[in-house]
Amino acid sequence: MTTEVIDPYNDPKKPLLVVISGPSGVGKDVTIERMKGLGYPFHFVVTATTRPIRPGEVHGKDYFFISMGEFAAMIEQDELLEYAVVYGDYKGIPKSQVRQALASGKDVIMRIDVQGAETIRGIAPHAVLIYISAESEEALVHRLRQRKTETEGQLAMRIATARQEQKKVGVFDYVVVNKEDELDETCQTIAAIINAEKCRVHRPEVIL
Amino acid sequence: MTTEVIDPYNDPKKPLLVVISGPSGVGKDVTIERMKGLGYPFHFVVTATTRPIRPGEVHGKDYFFISMGEFAAMIEQDELLEYAVVYGDYKGIPKSQVRQALASGKDVIMRIDVQGAETIRGIAPHAVLIYISAESEEALVHRLRQRKTETEGQLAMRIATARQEQKKVGVFDYVVVNKEDELDETCQTIAAIINAEKCRVHRPEVIL
Repeated sequence: MTTEVIDPYNDPKKPLLVVISGPSGVGKDVTIERMKGLGYPFHFVVTATTRPIRPGEVHGKDYFFISMGEFAAMIEQDELLEYAVVYGDYKGIPKSQVRQALASGKDVIMRIDVQGAETIRGIAPHAVLIYISAESEEALVHRLRQRKTETEGQLAMRIATARQEQKKVGVFDYVVVNKEDELDETCQTIAAIINAEKCRVHRPEVIL
Repeated sequence: MTTEVIDPYNDPKKPLLVVISGPSGVGKDVTIERMKGLGYPFHFVVTATTRPIRPGEVHGKDYFFISMGEFAAMIEQDELLEYAVVYGDYKGIPKSQVRQALASGKDVIMRIDVQGAETIRGIAPHAVLIYISAESEEALVHRLRQRKTETEGQLAMRIATARQEQKKVGVFDYVVVNKEDELDETCQTIAAIINAEKCRVHRPEVIL
Protein backbone atom coordinates (compact mmCIF):
# COMPACT_ATOMS: atom_id res chain seq x y z
CA MET A 1 0.00 0.00 0.00
CA THR A 2 1.46 3.35 -1.02
CA THR A 3 0.54 6.51 0.80
CA GLU A 4 0.65 10.10 -0.32
CA VAL A 5 1.20 13.16 1.84
CA ILE A 6 -1.65 15.52 1.23
CA ASP A 7 -1.17 19.15 0.25
CA PRO A 8 -3.33 21.24 2.62
CA TYR A 9 -3.58 24.04 0.03
CA ASN A 10 -5.03 21.68 -2.55
CA ASP A 11 -6.93 18.99 -0.69
CA PRO A 12 -9.58 17.15 -2.66
CA LYS A 13 -10.80 15.27 0.49
CA LYS A 14 -11.13 11.93 -1.21
CA PRO A 15 -14.14 9.88 -0.15
CA LEU A 16 -13.65 6.97 2.21
CA LEU A 17 -14.68 3.34 2.20
CA VAL A 18 -15.98 2.62 5.72
CA VAL A 19 -16.81 -0.85 7.02
CA ILE A 20 -19.07 -1.25 10.04
CA SER A 21 -18.74 -4.68 11.58
CA GLY A 22 -19.05 -6.52 14.87
CA PRO A 23 -20.74 -9.54 16.39
CA SER A 24 -24.36 -10.51 15.89
CA GLY A 25 -26.66 -8.58 18.24
CA VAL A 26 -24.27 -5.70 18.89
CA GLY A 27 -26.49 -3.21 17.05
CA LYS A 28 -24.91 -2.74 13.60
CA ASP A 29 -28.24 -2.45 11.78
CA VAL A 30 -29.88 -0.05 14.26
CA THR A 31 -26.71 2.07 14.25
CA ILE A 32 -26.80 2.39 10.47
CA GLU A 33 -30.56 3.02 10.47
CA ARG A 34 -30.08 5.78 13.06
CA MET A 35 -27.26 7.32 11.04
CA LYS A 36 -29.52 7.38 7.98
CA GLY A 37 -32.22 9.01 10.11
CA LEU A 38 -29.81 11.64 11.40
CA GLY A 39 -29.12 12.64 7.80
CA TYR A 40 -25.39 11.97 7.62
CA PRO A 41 -24.28 12.60 4.03
CA PHE A 42 -22.90 9.11 3.46
CA HIS A 43 -23.77 6.50 0.88
CA PHE A 44 -25.09 3.47 2.72
CA VAL A 45 -24.41 0.38 0.66
CA VAL A 46 -27.34 -1.79 -0.43
CA THR A 47 -26.48 -5.50 -0.44
CA ALA A 48 -27.46 -7.83 -3.29
CA THR A 49 -29.20 -11.05 -2.23
CA THR A 50 -30.79 -14.12 -3.76
CA ARG A 51 -33.24 -14.32 -0.84
CA PRO A 52 -36.90 -13.79 -1.92
CA ILE A 53 -38.31 -10.35 -1.20
CA ARG A 54 -40.45 -10.15 1.97
CA PRO A 55 -43.62 -8.07 2.37
CA GLY A 56 -42.74 -4.45 3.05
CA GLU A 57 -39.24 -4.71 1.62
CA VAL A 58 -38.22 -2.43 -1.21
CA HIS A 59 -35.90 -3.49 -4.06
CA GLY A 60 -32.87 -1.18 -4.12
CA LYS A 61 -33.55 0.11 -0.63
CA ASP A 62 -33.48 -2.91 1.69
CA TYR A 63 -31.63 -5.16 -0.75
CA PHE A 64 -31.12 -5.68 -4.45
CA PHE A 65 -33.18 -8.81 -4.93
CA ILE A 66 -31.58 -10.78 -7.75
CA SER A 67 -31.73 -14.32 -9.12
CA MET A 68 -29.17 -17.06 -8.48
CA GLY A 69 -28.19 -16.73 -12.16
CA GLU A 70 -27.56 -13.00 -11.84
CA PHE A 71 -25.60 -13.55 -8.63
CA ALA A 72 -23.51 -16.27 -10.26
CA ALA A 73 -22.73 -13.91 -13.15
CA MET A 74 -21.58 -11.22 -10.70
CA ILE A 75 -19.25 -13.69 -8.99
CA GLU A 76 -17.97 -14.82 -12.40
CA GLN A 77 -17.25 -11.24 -13.50
CA ASP A 78 -15.56 -10.39 -10.19
CA GLU A 79 -18.22 -7.76 -9.67
CA LEU A 80 -18.69 -8.43 -5.94
CA LEU A 81 -16.50 -6.77 -3.35
CA GLU A 82 -17.36 -9.54 -0.91
CA TYR A 83 -20.00 -12.25 -0.71
CA ALA A 84 -21.16 -15.01 1.60
CA VAL A 85 -23.83 -17.67 1.92
CA VAL A 86 -26.12 -16.82 4.82
CA TYR A 87 -28.60 -19.55 5.75
CA GLY A 88 -28.61 -20.80 2.16
CA ASP A 89 -29.06 -17.38 0.56
CA TYR A 90 -26.29 -15.52 -1.21
CA LYS A 91 -25.49 -11.98 -0.08
CA GLY A 92 -22.88 -9.74 -1.64
CA ILE A 93 -21.77 -6.15 -2.19
CA PRO A 94 -21.76 -4.98 -5.82
CA LYS A 95 -18.48 -3.24 -6.65
CA SER A 96 -20.20 -1.00 -9.22
CA GLN A 97 -22.35 0.58 -6.51
CA VAL A 98 -19.35 1.35 -4.33
CA ARG A 99 -17.36 2.70 -7.27
CA GLN A 100 -20.23 4.97 -8.35
CA ALA A 101 -20.73 6.36 -4.85
CA LEU A 102 -17.00 7.01 -4.38
CA ALA A 103 -16.83 8.63 -7.83
CA SER A 104 -19.67 10.96 -6.84
CA GLY A 105 -17.50 12.05 -3.88
CA LYS A 106 -19.58 10.38 -1.18
CA ASP A 107 -18.14 8.39 1.71
CA VAL A 108 -19.39 4.83 1.49
CA ILE A 109 -20.54 2.91 4.56
CA MET A 110 -20.90 -0.87 4.42
CA ARG A 111 -22.24 -3.22 7.05
CA ILE A 112 -20.39 -6.53 6.87
CA ASP A 113 -19.86 -9.43 9.26
CA VAL A 114 -16.44 -9.85 10.87
CA GLN A 115 -15.25 -12.49 8.41
CA GLY A 116 -16.29 -10.26 5.49
CA ALA A 117 -14.46 -7.32 7.05
CA GLU A 118 -11.27 -9.40 7.06
CA THR A 119 -11.80 -10.06 3.35
CA ILE A 120 -12.25 -6.33 2.69
CA ARG A 121 -9.02 -5.62 4.59
CA GLY A 122 -7.24 -7.89 2.13
CA ILE A 123 -8.66 -6.40 -1.07
CA ALA A 124 -9.06 -2.76 -0.02
CA PRO A 125 -6.32 -2.01 2.53
CA HIS A 126 -7.29 1.68 2.41
CA ALA A 127 -10.75 0.92 3.83
CA VAL A 128 -11.52 2.23 7.32
CA LEU A 129 -12.59 -0.74 9.44
CA ILE A 130 -14.75 -0.03 12.48
CA TYR A 131 -15.59 -2.79 14.94
CA ILE A 132 -18.73 -2.20 17.00
CA SER A 133 -18.47 -3.88 20.39
CA ALA A 134 -20.82 -4.29 23.31
CA GLU A 135 -19.57 -2.98 26.65
CA SER A 136 -19.24 -6.54 27.96
CA GLU A 137 -20.04 -10.10 26.95
CA GLU A 138 -22.89 -10.11 29.47
CA ALA A 139 -24.43 -7.08 27.75
CA LEU A 140 -24.13 -8.75 24.35
CA VAL A 141 -25.73 -11.98 25.58
CA HIS A 142 -28.50 -9.95 27.21
CA ARG A 143 -29.24 -8.20 23.90
CA LEU A 144 -29.21 -11.45 21.94
CA ARG A 145 -31.67 -12.96 24.45
CA GLN A 146 -33.95 -9.92 24.19
CA ARG A 147 -34.35 -10.42 20.43
CA LYS A 148 -36.11 -13.71 21.15
CA THR A 149 -35.57 -14.75 17.52
CA GLU A 150 -33.19 -17.64 18.25
CA THR A 151 -33.54 -21.03 19.91
CA GLU A 152 -31.22 -21.81 22.85
CA GLY A 153 -29.00 -23.79 20.47
CA GLN A 154 -28.80 -20.91 17.97
CA LEU A 155 -28.12 -18.53 20.83
CA ALA A 156 -25.24 -20.68 22.11
CA MET A 157 -23.83 -20.68 18.57
CA ARG A 158 -24.10 -16.89 18.26
CA ILE A 159 -22.39 -16.40 21.61
CA ALA A 160 -19.57 -18.77 20.67
CA THR A 161 -19.21 -16.97 17.31
CA ALA A 162 -19.22 -13.56 19.01
CA ARG A 163 -16.42 -14.72 21.30
CA GLN A 164 -14.34 -15.74 18.28
CA GLU A 165 -15.17 -12.50 16.47
CA GLN A 166 -14.12 -10.41 19.45
CA LYS A 167 -10.63 -11.95 19.07
CA LYS A 168 -10.44 -10.50 15.56
CA VAL A 169 -10.53 -6.89 16.77
CA GLY A 170 -6.85 -6.52 15.79
CA VAL A 171 -7.88 -6.64 12.12
CA PHE A 172 -9.79 -3.37 12.58
CA ASP A 173 -8.69 0.26 12.76
CA TYR A 174 -11.19 1.45 15.33
CA VAL A 175 -13.44 -0.01 17.98
CA VAL A 176 -16.60 1.79 19.04
CA VAL A 177 -18.34 0.55 22.17
CA ASN A 178 -22.08 0.71 21.50
CA LYS A 179 -23.43 1.17 25.02
CA GLU A 180 -27.01 0.34 25.88
CA ASP A 181 -29.22 3.42 25.29
CA GLU A 182 -26.28 5.41 23.86
CA LEU A 183 -26.97 4.88 20.17
CA ASP A 184 -26.59 8.56 19.27
CA GLU A 185 -23.17 8.61 20.94
CA THR A 186 -22.20 5.58 18.83
CA CYS A 187 -23.33 7.38 15.65
CA GLN A 188 -21.46 10.55 16.64
CA THR A 189 -18.28 8.57 17.30
CA ILE A 190 -18.51 6.88 13.89
CA ALA A 191 -19.02 10.30 12.29
CA ALA A 192 -16.01 11.64 14.25
CA ILE A 193 -13.85 8.78 12.97
CA ILE A 194 -14.87 9.55 9.38
CA ASN A 195 -14.22 13.27 9.93
CA ALA A 196 -10.80 12.53 11.44
CA GLU A 197 -9.83 10.03 8.72
CA LYS A 198 -10.49 12.70 6.10
CA CYS A 199 -7.88 14.89 7.84
CA ARG A 200 -5.09 12.30 7.80
CA VAL A 201 -1.85 13.61 6.35
CA HIS A 202 -0.73 10.21 5.05
CA ARG A 203 -3.56 8.99 2.94
CA PRO A 204 -3.47 5.55 1.35
CA GLU A 205 -4.20 5.41 -2.33
CA VAL A 206 -7.76 4.31 -3.09
CA ILE A 207 -7.96 1.47 -5.63
CA LEU A 208 -10.97 -0.74 -6.10
CA MET B 1 7.29 2.05 19.15
CA THR B 2 5.28 -0.90 20.39
CA THR B 3 1.52 -0.99 20.02
CA GLU B 4 -1.07 -2.92 21.92
CA VAL B 5 -4.42 -4.14 20.62
CA ILE B 6 -7.08 -2.86 22.96
CA ASP B 7 -9.67 -5.11 24.59
CA PRO B 8 -13.09 -3.51 23.95
CA TYR B 9 -14.52 -5.19 27.06
CA ASN B 10 -11.87 -3.61 29.25
CA ASP B 11 -10.90 -0.33 27.70
CA PRO B 12 -9.34 2.23 29.98
CA LYS B 13 -9.38 4.93 27.23
CA LYS B 14 -5.89 6.18 27.96
CA PRO B 15 -5.47 9.94 27.70
CA LEU B 16 -3.76 11.41 24.66
CA LEU B 17 -0.95 13.86 24.10
CA VAL B 18 -2.12 16.22 21.36
CA VAL B 19 0.08 18.78 19.63
CA ILE B 20 -1.50 21.70 17.80
CA SER B 21 0.95 23.31 15.41
CA GLY B 22 1.09 25.24 12.16
CA PRO B 23 2.59 28.40 10.70
CA SER B 24 2.51 31.80 12.34
CA GLY B 25 -0.80 33.59 11.72
CA VAL B 26 -2.83 30.47 10.97
CA GLY B 27 -4.89 30.84 14.15
CA LYS B 28 -3.43 28.35 16.64
CA ASP B 29 -3.95 30.60 19.66
CA VAL B 30 -7.52 31.63 18.79
CA THR B 31 -8.39 28.00 18.09
CA ILE B 32 -7.17 26.92 21.53
CA GLU B 33 -8.85 29.88 23.21
CA ARG B 34 -12.13 28.99 21.50
CA MET B 35 -11.79 25.35 22.53
CA LYS B 36 -11.28 26.46 26.14
CA GLY B 37 -14.37 28.65 25.82
CA LEU B 38 -16.44 25.79 24.40
CA GLY B 39 -15.66 23.80 27.53
CA TYR B 40 -13.84 20.83 25.99
CA PRO B 41 -12.59 18.64 28.86
CA PHE B 42 -8.94 18.80 27.87
CA HIS B 43 -5.92 19.98 29.78
CA PHE B 44 -4.45 22.92 27.89
CA VAL B 45 -0.74 23.10 28.60
CA VAL B 46 0.67 26.25 30.17
CA THR B 47 4.13 27.13 28.85
CA ALA B 48 6.98 28.21 31.13
CA THR B 49 8.80 31.38 30.06
CA THR B 50 11.58 33.65 31.23
CA ARG B 51 9.83 36.64 29.66
CA PRO B 52 8.71 39.26 32.21
CA ILE B 53 5.01 39.19 33.09
CA ARG B 54 2.90 41.82 31.25
CA PRO B 55 -0.03 43.75 32.73
CA GLY B 56 -3.16 41.60 32.74
CA GLU B 57 -1.28 38.31 32.48
CA VAL B 58 -1.78 35.68 35.16
CA HIS B 59 0.98 33.37 36.40
CA GLY B 60 -0.05 29.74 35.84
CA LYS B 61 -2.77 30.71 33.38
CA ASP B 62 -1.09 32.61 30.55
CA TYR B 63 2.39 31.33 31.34
CA PHE B 64 4.48 30.10 34.21
CA PHE B 65 6.76 33.10 34.64
CA ILE B 66 10.07 31.79 35.93
CA SER B 67 13.63 33.10 36.25
CA MET B 68 16.52 32.25 33.94
CA GLY B 69 18.02 30.26 36.83
CA GLU B 70 14.86 28.20 37.28
CA PHE B 71 14.65 27.62 33.53
CA ALA B 72 18.29 26.55 33.38
CA ALA B 73 17.66 24.09 36.22
CA MET B 74 14.70 22.60 34.33
CA ILE B 75 16.86 22.12 31.22
CA GLU B 76 19.60 20.60 33.39
CA GLN B 77 17.18 18.12 35.00
CA ASP B 78 15.62 17.20 31.64
CA GLU B 79 12.33 18.51 32.97
CA LEU B 80 11.26 20.19 29.72
CA LEU B 81 9.47 18.30 27.00
CA GLU B 82 10.60 20.89 24.49
CA TYR B 83 12.03 24.39 24.67
CA ALA B 84 13.11 27.19 22.39
CA VAL B 85 14.46 30.72 22.51
CA VAL B 86 11.86 33.11 21.13
CA TYR B 87 13.06 36.68 20.61
CA GLY B 88 15.62 36.26 23.40
CA ASP B 89 13.16 34.74 25.90
CA TYR B 90 13.13 31.07 26.82
CA LYS B 91 9.89 29.17 26.44
CA GLY B 92 9.37 25.53 27.31
CA ILE B 93 6.84 22.88 28.31
CA PRO B 94 7.32 21.39 31.79
CA LYS B 95 7.14 17.58 31.63
CA SER B 96 5.73 17.42 35.17
CA GLN B 97 2.60 19.32 34.11
CA VAL B 98 1.98 17.00 31.16
CA ARG B 99 2.62 13.91 33.31
CA GLN B 100 0.23 15.12 36.02
CA ALA B 101 -2.56 15.89 33.54
CA LEU B 102 -2.17 12.52 31.77
CA ALA B 103 -2.12 10.73 35.15
CA SER B 104 -5.40 12.44 36.05
CA GLY B 105 -6.86 10.91 32.87
CA LYS B 106 -7.14 14.16 30.90
CA ASP B 107 -6.16 14.53 27.28
CA VAL B 108 -3.38 17.09 27.02
CA ILE B 109 -3.31 19.73 24.30
CA MET B 110 -0.11 21.63 23.57
CA ARG B 111 0.42 24.49 21.17
CA ILE B 112 3.93 24.28 19.71
CA ASP B 113 5.64 25.72 16.63
CA VAL B 114 6.38 23.37 13.73
CA GLN B 115 10.02 22.82 14.69
CA GLY B 116 8.95 21.98 18.25
CA ALA B 117 6.34 19.54 16.93
CA GLU B 118 9.11 17.71 15.09
CA THR B 119 11.03 17.47 18.36
CA ILE B 120 7.94 16.05 20.12
CA ARG B 121 7.54 13.47 17.35
CA GLY B 122 11.04 12.28 18.16
CA ILE B 123 10.64 12.00 21.94
CA ALA B 124 6.94 11.04 22.15
CA PRO B 125 6.07 9.04 19.00
CA HIS B 126 2.66 8.26 20.50
CA ALA B 127 1.67 11.95 20.45
CA VAL B 128 -1.10 12.99 18.05
CA LEU B 129 0.29 15.75 15.85
CA ILE B 130 -2.21 18.12 14.23
CA TYR B 131 -1.09 20.69 11.69
CA ILE B 132 -3.37 23.69 11.31
CA SER B 133 -3.22 25.09 7.80
CA ALA B 134 -4.76 28.08 6.09
CA GLU B 135 -6.86 27.32 3.00
CA SER B 136 -4.22 28.93 0.78
CA GLU B 137 -0.99 30.89 1.04
CA GLU B 138 -2.86 34.03 -0.01
CA ALA B 139 -5.25 33.57 2.92
CA LEU B 140 -2.34 33.13 5.33
CA VAL B 141 -0.54 36.22 4.03
CA HIS B 142 -3.80 38.18 4.27
CA ARG B 143 -4.20 37.18 7.92
CA LEU B 144 -0.59 38.01 8.76
CA ARG B 145 -1.04 41.48 7.19
CA GLN B 146 -4.26 42.04 9.13
CA ARG B 147 -2.44 41.59 12.45
CA LYS B 148 -0.42 44.73 11.66
CA THR B 149 2.11 43.73 14.33
CA GLU B 150 5.03 43.14 11.95
CA THR B 151 7.18 45.34 9.73
CA GLU B 152 7.39 44.46 6.03
CA GLY B 153 10.72 42.75 6.69
CA GLN B 154 9.29 40.68 9.55
CA LEU B 155 6.29 39.82 7.41
CA ALA B 156 8.51 38.62 4.57
CA MET B 157 10.39 36.49 7.11
CA ARG B 158 7.15 34.97 8.47
CA ILE B 159 5.89 34.19 4.97
CA ALA B 160 9.17 32.51 4.04
CA THR B 161 9.09 30.54 7.30
CA ALA B 162 5.46 29.52 6.74
CA ARG B 163 6.39 28.23 3.29
CA GLN B 164 9.12 26.07 4.82
CA GLU B 165 6.80 24.91 7.60
CA GLN B 166 4.11 23.88 5.12
CA LYS B 167 6.66 21.46 3.63
CA LYS B 168 6.88 19.73 7.03
CA VAL B 169 3.26 18.57 6.95
CA GLY B 170 4.45 14.99 6.42
CA VAL B 171 5.73 14.94 10.02
CA PHE B 172 2.15 15.30 11.26
CA ASP B 173 -0.73 12.83 11.63
CA TYR B 174 -3.55 15.17 10.70
CA VAL B 175 -4.06 18.44 8.90
CA VAL B 176 -6.99 20.69 9.74
CA VAL B 177 -7.71 23.54 7.37
CA ASN B 178 -8.73 26.54 9.49
CA LYS B 179 -10.95 28.43 7.09
CA GLU B 180 -11.68 32.11 7.56
CA ASP B 181 -14.77 32.53 9.79
CA GLU B 182 -15.02 28.76 10.37
CA LEU B 183 -13.29 28.61 13.77
CA ASP B 184 -15.99 26.45 15.37
CA GLU B 185 -15.64 23.92 12.55
CA THR B 186 -11.89 23.82 13.19
CA CYS B 187 -12.50 23.18 16.91
CA GLN B 188 -15.06 20.45 16.15
CA THR B 189 -12.66 18.75 13.76
CA ILE B 190 -9.89 18.77 16.37
CA ALA B 191 -12.35 17.29 18.90
CA ALA B 192 -13.39 14.65 16.32
CA ILE B 193 -9.74 13.68 15.79
CA ILE B 194 -9.26 13.27 19.55
CA ASN B 195 -12.49 11.25 19.81
CA ALA B 196 -11.41 9.02 16.90
CA GLU B 197 -7.87 8.54 18.22
CA LYS B 198 -9.32 7.25 21.50
CA CYS B 199 -11.12 4.53 19.49
CA ARG B 200 -8.02 3.24 17.72
CA VAL B 201 -7.58 -0.50 18.03
CA HIS B 202 -3.78 -0.34 17.80
CA ARG B 203 -2.73 2.06 20.46
CA PRO B 204 0.90 3.03 20.88
CA GLU B 205 2.29 2.74 24.38
CA VAL B 206 2.44 6.08 26.19
CA ILE B 207 5.84 6.80 27.72
CA LEU B 208 7.06 10.22 28.77
